[in-house]
Amino acid sequence: MTKGALPSNAKMVFKGEIFEVWQWPQTMYDGTTVTFERLRRDDSAQVIAVVDGKILLQTQEQPDRTSPFLSLPGGRIEEGEDPLVGAKRELLEESGYASDDWELFSAHSPYSKIEYVSYTYIARQCSYVQAPMLDAGEKIETQAIDFDSFLSLSDNPAFRGGELRGVLLRARYEPAEKEKLHRTIFGS
Amino acid sequence: MTKGALPSNAKMVFKGEIFEVWQWPQTMYDGTTVTFERLRRDDSAQVIAVVDGKILLQTQEQPDRTSPFLSLPGGRIEEGEDPLVGAKRELLEESGYASDDWELFSAHSPYSKIEYVSYTYIARQCSYVQAPMLDAGEKIETQAIDFDSFLSLSDNPAFRGGELRGVLLRARYEPAEKEKLHRTIFGS
Repeated sequence: MTKGALPSNAKMVFKGEIFEVWQWPQTMYDGTTVTFERLRRDDSAQVIAVVDGKILLQTQEQPDRTSPFLSLPGGRIEEGEDPLVGAKRELLEESGYASDDWELFSAHSPYSKIEYVSYTYIARQCSYVQAPMLDAGEKIETQAIDFDSFLSLSDNPAFRGGELRGVLLRARYEPAEKEKLHRTIFGS
Repeated sequence: MTKGALPSNAKMVFKGEIFEVWQWPQTMYDGTTVTFERLRRDDSAQVIAVVDGKILLQTQEQPDRTSPFLSLPGGRIEEGEDPLVGAKRELLEESGYASDDWELFSAHSPYSKIEYVSYTYIARQCSYVQAPMLDAGEKIETQAIDFDSFLSLSDNPAFRGGELRGVLLRARYEPAEKEKLHRTIFGS
């Protein structure tokens, strides 16, 4: 992630519960210096989890939000944790499913002012291995939806999927993209 | 923006150059309390500025970025400033253009953890009234592109357009959406 990397002279000026604030003196085009600022936060992963030809979708409530939202299973990668390990952990904790067939689908840094990578993984042939282990701040229901319903999430304002929304939208309109996405997700 | 509003008991724990960090004690589903955190920053506006049937696009460099990016004219709304007033000011400062025919196109809060609204305005029949007034941290070149090139920005990774990317993508694939967008932007 060189593109978004903080300059070597950046200093952390505040560390919150989620976000760190970093600042550095930036030389401007006219030679003057201005304090520039960027944030850092833990990366996250979302998982396209395949179960019997369907994809797991979650309806989630959070204690500080009035309306539920839709998302793929996933969550925060802990500091120092390998993203794939974090994705497997989050899938298991939130849904109870596990897989031996994982593939990285994409990695994006969506915010120019935040050091943060959003990983999307595919987990094929998932099987249910244990009850979900939700923490006190999570209310999550998991369902399995078919591929066309998955693509329709690109139209659903309640779906939090980041850059995936554009991928789904494109697949709905471009038959070749749709076929390619299907093959990538389901392996056939 | 009720959806993203901070709880009334939230307190600002840090104020940086761009971001404020707010925290509050959040009661969880099991009755325990956890410190929750959200950010605030000034809103921003981008402008679909129409000049002789074309749309202004900027190539921009910033002193802390290695590669230029593409964007519509726009920038940060100052605290207490009306968004439309800020949009007019930014268009004039960055491009030298002004208009008497403005319309709000959309307002989005793209980040669930950041109190921030991104406004998109349409400014029709723009005319060049003065040289741009760039600050020491801006290198901006402005060009005018046609409607189809505008839609193609949805494919350009260098384009920072936020939610507008999805709007452009949809218009490329849906003839009815394309016609509607054209009518909205050009007024005919």
